[in-house]
Amino acid sequence: MVTGRDVNRRWILRRRPNGELRSEHLDLTTEPIGEINSGQVLVRTVYTSLDPAHRLYAREKDSYIPSVPLGGVMRSFNMGVVEESQNADFATGDIVTGVFGWEDYSVSAGDGSDYMSVVDMDPRLPLAARFALFEHIGLAAYFGLVKIIDPRPGDTLVVSAAAGAVGSMAVQIGKILGCRVIGIAGSDAKCALVRDEFGADVAINYRTADLTSALRAAAPDGVNGFIDGVGGEILEAVLEVLAMNARIAMAGFISQYENDAQPYGPGNIYNLINQRARIEGYSAPDFASDSHAWAKAHRDITDWYFQGRIKYRLDVDQGLENAPQSLRKLFSGKNEGKLLIQVSEEPIRQPPRGESLPPGLSGDRSR
Amino acid sequence: MVTGRDVNRRWILRRRPNGELRSEHLDLTTEPIGEINSGQVLVRTVYTSLDPAHRLYAREKDSYIPSVPLGGVMRSFNMGVVEESQNADFATGDIVTGVFGWEDYSVSAGDGSDYMSVVDMDPRLPLAARFALFEHIGLAAYFGLVKIIDPRPGDTLVVSAAAGAVGSMAVQIGKILGCRVIGIAGSDAKCALVRDEFGADVAINYRTADLTSALRAAAPDGVNGFIDGVGGEILEAVLEVLAMNARIAMAGFISQYENDAQPYGPGNIYNLINQRARIEGYSAPDFASDSHAWAKAHRDITDWYFQGRIKYRLDVDQGLENAPQSLRKLFSGKNEGKLLIQVSEEPIRQPPRGESLPPGLSGDRSR
Repeated sequence: MVTGRDVNRRWILRRRPNGELRSEHLDLTTEPIGEINSGQVLVRTVYTSLDPAHRLYAREKDSYIPSVPLGGVMRSFNMGVVEESQNADFATGDIVTGVFGWEDYSVSAGDGSDYMSVVDMDPRLPLAARFALFEHIGLAAYFGLVKIIDPRPGDTLVVSAAAGAVGSMAVQIGKILGCRVIGIAGSDAKCALVRDEFGADVAINYRTADLTSALRAAAPDGVNGFIDGVGGEILEAVLEVLAMNARIAMAGFISQYENDAQPYGPGNIYNLINQRARIEGYSAPDFASDSHAWAKAHRDITDWYFQGRIKYRLDVDQGLENAPQSLRKLFSGKNEGKLLIQVSEEPIRQPPRGESLPPGLSGDRSR
Repeated sequence: MVTGRDVNRRWILRRRPNGELRSEHLDLTTEPIGEINSGQVLVRTVYTSLDPAHRLYAREKDSYIPSVPLGGVMRSFNMGVVEESQNADFATGDIVTGVFGWEDYSVSAGDGSDYMSVVDMDPRLPLAARFALFEHIGLAAYFGLVKIIDPRPGDTLVVSAAAGAVGSMAVQIGKILGCRVIGIAGSDAKCALVRDEFGADVAINYRTADLTSALRAAAPDGVNGFIDGVGGEILEAVLEVLAMNARIAMAGFISQYENDAQPYGPGNIYNLINQRARIEGYSAPDFASDSHAWAKAHRDITDWYFQGRIKYRLDVDQGLENAPQSLRKLFSGKNEGKLLIQVSEEPIRQPPRGESLPPGLSGDRSR
């Protein structure tokens, strides 16, 4: 394929989906990139992250950030390389992350509005690992646990979508923090992964189990903390088995992303009174404003990884043109690890010296 | 009527209601009181508090405390006088409150399980005022505000059932804490009360207004705190207009107490993520374990009352036999102030000396 400054491919949102977001709602257009003006930075996309939130961005209704306007490029979290900079804070060759879009090249205003920042990561870590261990994935698990739930050792923690990108991190960090961890996932194979690879004490297949009964059996003293990215009936089941003063960290609600008109609200939310419990919504990037906590999170996760206490899985598809099709794997639960599209070649980095790399999971794969 | 140790009238739960709790679900029985054994205390009921929670107690399903078993006396929060004590902590003539029942006399085990405690209240306050200013009413407003919402001056606070017992206290305490207060009530007359008597900046009649639009207009920068005793569609409307980091203190959900099978859950609960907001369930009596905060709450409310900054309204019906019928006023919104049944005569107290009493509201009444 030909790409470059004159042929920048971009996935443009044309129609708002009524249900699943598919390629028919988007057009892959090409347009040249103009002059890079003062303050601006030109970024070549290397990886783009596929996330449940794309479905929210395609809504009419704003979510935690405004929805993508019709005619706009589909928003995404990308990693890329600075190809040209008219901004003193960024240099050609810098590896950056930011909220850009499904496109070969992004022009950043360089004013912070897209959260662009230079990647500061142990050079022994693969670049793509950043999407699993940090950013809106690993940090969502970390801050949901450390800041919202704040468990005591011995607490019982439930993690939904426990084989998923955030969930698998939450299971592992929960174990590191001394919790008893119950993972919920949507197949026996995923449950095996949650138990055997990520270390949950119990894994429950919500498609085959009576979830409330299974949770009651697995948590006879009730659930002290719950990291939820699913919402809907999963949230409702956990609300039935809360311990006193339980904390629910609400990170997402993927089960309801397709239900624009009438998301399903749990009718037993009032159990929060019985249990003097709380639900708190949060978003990992907010914690960047606490620079101490932010730095500690990155240090903790890096340390845990190199101590062999955290594994990650990536599912890397190739080619920007495949973004809408790959996205469907997320909603059908078919992805095997954090889902990325590799859009262009990784830049050459300083190779790691002296120490051998700990492995990710054997399931890591590029296709 | 004849009452006494040999003719103790008790309202016994016979059938679980499917909808409203009415007298047909209860029998008024009489039975003698036996010997008062070691540790036990005999309490003559003076006032019994009628609360939305009776409907919860009559459910099959346990709520924040276990439901009343069929054949058991309807649970209630009472004030009474100790008539006989075999317990060193209580003396004949003590005025006490506790979780007893709809009955002329209660036998307390004296072991704390019914939360029986001697009333410690400024003698210038009428006895019945305790039900409006303190206990599960005034203290629910106080702790919801001070401990769960913890507003800053200038914050926008919403109060549901703002003409009700808890709501009217929350409106007034919210103003004392420097909030801009929006009250929600179910009639224009109640809205007038909420504004003119309790001091809300805005009052919205949810039966005639488009609540979400009205809230948006009244709170253009969003709602920072919400004390909710209603749940359902009221909660759903407020979830649409939350400011960032909003706090919802969930004290009750009276709109759903009749819906045993399928309470209505707000489908937009996921807005908590957008707004990094939280919902926290609580129960005022829990805060008794923090003796400093507990004492301060009583002192603050007493001071505010004698400073003329807090008014209360009582709606006192006469006669235990009328309890089920009076209760219906609560659910139809017809009570005018905290609803009580006077079951027997108040004991003679040391009359207040030297200072004149500040008034309650002119609406106080006994019938």
